[in-house]
Amino acid sequence: MTPNSKDVLEKLRHYLAAGPTEGLRRFLREVHYADLAEALPELNLAQQIKVIRLCEPSKAAAVLYELDRKEVAALLEGLGEWRAALILREMSPDDAVDLLGEMPQEERERFLSLMGAAEAEDMQELLEYGPETAGGIMTTEYVAVRRDLTVQEAIDRLRATAPDVETIYYVFVVDGENHLVGVVSLRELILSSPSTRVADIMRTEVVSVNVRTDQEEVARIVAKYDFLAVPVVDDEHRLLGIVTVDDILDVLEEEATEDILRLANIEYEGRYFEAGVLARAGKRLPWLVVLLFGGLLAGNVIANFSATLSAITALAFFMTVMAGGPGNLATQTLAVVVRGLATGEVRPREVLAVILGEVEVATLVGIVSGLILAFVAYAWQGEVLLGIVVGISLALSMIIAAVIGSFVPLIINRFGVDPALASGPFITTLMDVCSMLIYFSLATFIMNRFI
Amino acid sequence: MTPNSKDVLEKLRHYLAAGPTEGLRRFLREVHYADLAEALPELNLAQQIKVIRLCEPSKAAAVLYELDRKEVAALLEGLGEWRAALILREMSPDDAVDLLGEMPQEERERFLSLMGAAEAEDMQELLEYGPETAGGIMTTEYVAVRRDLTVQEAIDRLRATAPDVETIYYVFVVDGENHLVGVVSLRELILSSPSTRVADIMRTEVVSVNVRTDQEEVARIVAKYDFLAVPVVDDEHRLLGIVTVDDILDVLEEEATEDILRLANIEYEGRYFEAGVLARAGKRLPWLVVLLFGGLLAGNVIANFSATLSAITALAFFMTVMAGGPGNLATQTLAVVVRGLATGEVRPREVLAVILGEVEVATLVGIVSGLILAFVAYAWQGEVLLGIVVGISLALSMIIAAVIGSFVPLIINRFGVDPALASGPFITTLMDVCSMLIYFSLATFIMNRFI
Repeated sequence: MTPNSKDVLEKLRHYLAAGPTEGLRRFLREVHYADLAEALPELNLAQQIKVIRLCEPSKAAAVLYELDRKEVAALLEGLGEWRAALILREMSPDDAVDLLGEMPQEERERFLSLMGAAEAEDMQELLEYGPETAGGIMTTEYVAVRRDLTVQEAIDRLRATAPDVETIYYVFVVDGENHLVGVVSLRELILSSPSTRVADIMRTEVVSVNVRTDQEEVARIVAKYDFLAVPVVDDEHRLLGIVTVDDILDVLEEEATEDILRLANIEYEGRYFEAGVLARAGKRLPWLVVLLFGGLLAGNVIANFSATLSAITALAFFMTVMAGGPGNLATQTLAVVVRGLATGEVRPREVLAVILGEVEVATLVGIVSGLILAFVAYAWQGEVLLGIVVGISLALSMIIAAVIGSFVPLIINRFGVDPALASGPFITTLMDVCSMLIYFSLATFIMNRFI
Repeated sequence: MTPNSKDVLEKLRHYLAAGPTEGLRRFLREVHYADLAEALPELNLAQQIKVIRLCEPSKAAAVLYELDRKEVAALLEGLGEWRAALILREMSPDDAVDLLGEMPQEERERFLSLMGAAEAEDMQELLEYGPETAGGIMTTEYVAVRRDLTVQEAIDRLRATAPDVETIYYVFVVDGENHLVGVVSLRELILSSPSTRVADIMRTEVVSVNVRTDQEEVARIVAKYDFLAVPVVDDEHRLLGIVTVDDILDVLEEEATEDILRLANIEYEGRYFEAGVLARAGKRLPWLVVLLFGGLLAGNVIANFSATLSAITALAFFMTVMAGGPGNLATQTLAVVVRGLATGEVRPREVLAVILGEVEVATLVGIVSGLILAFVAYAWQGEVLLGIVVGISLALSMIIAAVIGSFVPLIINRFGVDPALASGPFITTLMDVCSMLIYFSLATFIMNRFI
């Protein structure tokens, strides 16, 4: 909790204990919804309901949107149907959809039926777009005007609609069939003379996104052009809604979380720590078991060389280094490539250049690491040949680690799959097989030849 | 490249080939700077210089800011001092500082001396704040007014300064000594009657950040309150600048990159792929060597149990699984905890609850994985005792992996260190030592007792 919300929590407790509701009501009018939302979960459900009941419906809506989804369901339940409907109607449709979209079908329909017919229809429409598309994150509350309005008329229009829309900083210009034909910012309106026609100052080359565009792509466009909002259109270029920059901040956070968890081989949507132990274990177990069998493949390689291992037990002492070193290098390569692809620093067509660059790095790193390990092995075990085997094996495995760590994410990205799915555990397990194969093959070769 | 920039690139090539510059100049007036910045690197340096020379200085500044830093240095060089100074002066001070901050001291000072005295002073000041603090990313171009202005006067003031400031959507209210006393949004100004006093509609509880606040914290505040900009103040609460939401988008991307690379044990600022092979190898080698010695610790554990290993060679077949499985689980735990801390889902004081939760998950996962491995080992090697040893060791190691994977990042976070520094490779190397110790201790115990 930030210092602000701590302060808010203390005051809430004070007012709740004090008895009469007037002080609490006044305090709730002044407090910022974001602070309130952070403090609220620290109260018990009865207190939460009391607080929400005393909030203005619009503030209550803003607070509910920030809370954990399962808390919201309990709260709405506790508030009673009439009050719950009042609050839901105050939410912008995209937020309400976010909230209801995560509820079970049954509850969702009950709440939808509580809302007004028009709102429910808007929302039913929004619910049909994929949650991670432009349609899923857009709001339908924006300002659109016809091209023949004057600047003054447009500003008056803004004044009239401002309380109901998410951003008044862009005014979109549409034709008779709602096709998007231009955009003008409030900044430009303010700077123009009141009698100018909107058509004369609007920009006609409007960057827009299709309703089915992936949210990650929408985020990239907003970031690229430094937009405060981007219009969403259908296939006929009709304006359907807008995505605002505050939602883009959430998208960026969500996508970074998805990538970080995917890199660790966890596929999880929503908030991980909100899920129960069984759900968390259920998500993680299947892949861990698959990787277990992957690890047994490497074990099988070792078993095939058990004669070599029996002859030279010291080979076992270097197995963790031989698996770990190249595994770490592969993890690093994977991370830089996956992140490079996500930020656009690596362009998908540069596959070969990226792989070659990483191989060059690995060659350097591998030779130095190999020399160090060779020296350590010789110093520790007093065997020159053992030093040569571990040194060369480590260097070779590291070079192959760079190839696998860069090639796999780049190639699956080519096929339109999220490169982060080539997770670290998957790559290191694959590397274990390669490293053991190289290590024991070389050891067997040297042993048969020189010992 | 997005479709837009491909189109821009084609047109640029067309106009460059066509000869007369008038068409190109007209095209450059219309094109969006972000598209131009994406297309430009595909041209050769002479062409780039020609294009930038024909751009309006303000557009040239916006384009330069988007380019890779080393390209910018070459371009500024090629443009000549006079034109370079013209363009740099058009940049907002925070962007110019970003650009010059990454140049070598000598070049930086040459470019600073090219700029006007006032701008250079502003920038010198900005350069003194850490690049990852509020001061480092703020702009000094904002609109501030006195509280006794009317709404109409404030709007007039906005009109006058709009071309020079980054955002006109917030007007900050200051007293005679520049202390921040309130804020009013353009939305509120537009909605109020022109004769109202700013003091009557401004919000006085302004959320602000200190000039030394870390950029990650600034991003969190902007995201929490859905701000378009947040004011930056000094210790006496004097207004120094603002951080706008478009810079926050960059911060979020930067911080996610930093976390992903740190989790893979790479400490890298700036763009990784822009660095040469030697720089990349130099960044990665030291830690890989440290981890190599970490791996040798695990090897040392194995060496201490070489009698056991010689007696039962089959133990070696399960070493990769025994190191890999708990390593993967630790990597997953680390990822969810580090990400949870970054997004605020995990609150720093919940250390114990988080660890216990993850241990419960690992216990479930460990028992199932252990049973599977025990069965596989028995089926493969036909030894009941071997199955018991590998099964119990795997389950135990996985539980310990959950403790280490959650405890280490939580504890270093407590000491104010970025939890992502508890990287995957570091954690898995530590786990290797633990797993080998458990595995061989248990095997030795069972062997001495039952065989």
